Amino acid sequence: MHTKAATITEKICPLEFAVNAISGKWKIPIVWQINEGKKRPSELLRGIGKVDRRVLNQQLKELEEAGILSKEIFKELPPRVEYTLTPLGQQLVAVLWQLNDWGKILLDKQDVVAG
Amino acid sequence: MHTKAATITEKICPLEFAVNAISGKWKIPIVWQINEGKKRPSELLRGIGKVDRRVLNQQLKELEEAGILSKEIFKELPPRVEYTLTPLGQQLVAVLWQLNDWGKILLDKQDVVAG
Repeated sequence: MHTKAATITEKICPLEFAVNAISGKWKIPIVWQINEGKKRPSELLRGIGKVDRRVLNQQLKELEEAGILSKEIFKELPPRVEYTLTPLGQQLVAVLWQLNDWGKILLDKQDVVAG
Repeated sequence: MHTKAATITEKICPLEFAVNAISGKWKIPIVWQINEGKKRPSELLRGIGKVDRRVLNQQLKELEEAGILSKEIFKELPPRVEYTLTPLGQQLVAVLWQLNDWGKILLDKQDVVAG
């Protein structure tokens, strides 16, 4: 039976919440590139390739609002914007490394199936 | 510059591959429910709630093809089908627990922001 309480508990399942926070288009590549030391939107544009500026800015905004990235604006001419990982973002990167390792096993397995 | 080799390397990035394998609708809830001991499609239908039978079957098929689930058909009347996690699926569950823990931190943080 589905009580109201059960529905609410499901809705805020931490795993689902985590997946939603990182499942936007390009969010994982953005976090990954920033982890590798890229800071400025122009560097991210070059690093990720297919993403366009408008989409990139939207994803950066959402990642900042989620507390994963921190944005710093330097009052220069022209103004400079830099993004870095917050501690929460760094914790996410640690989990993504685990998922990356699992992806390697999955890739090897698929190669065996395909080969 | 984007060389062909670089493009291929990006394309088979293990992390991206992992995310693609689990980002289908309901795939994470399905893996989660099977981890909790549910085995039959009818149990999964009751456990997940909003998913319909056709979508569930498609997702189960894809998870089986990826080597995450194993399917067993019991030749009874009516025929009985059961799904279990493969070792690869169990390794995925371990990573999902990490992501769940990260989701808890994220949730706490959002509560603070909202409160």
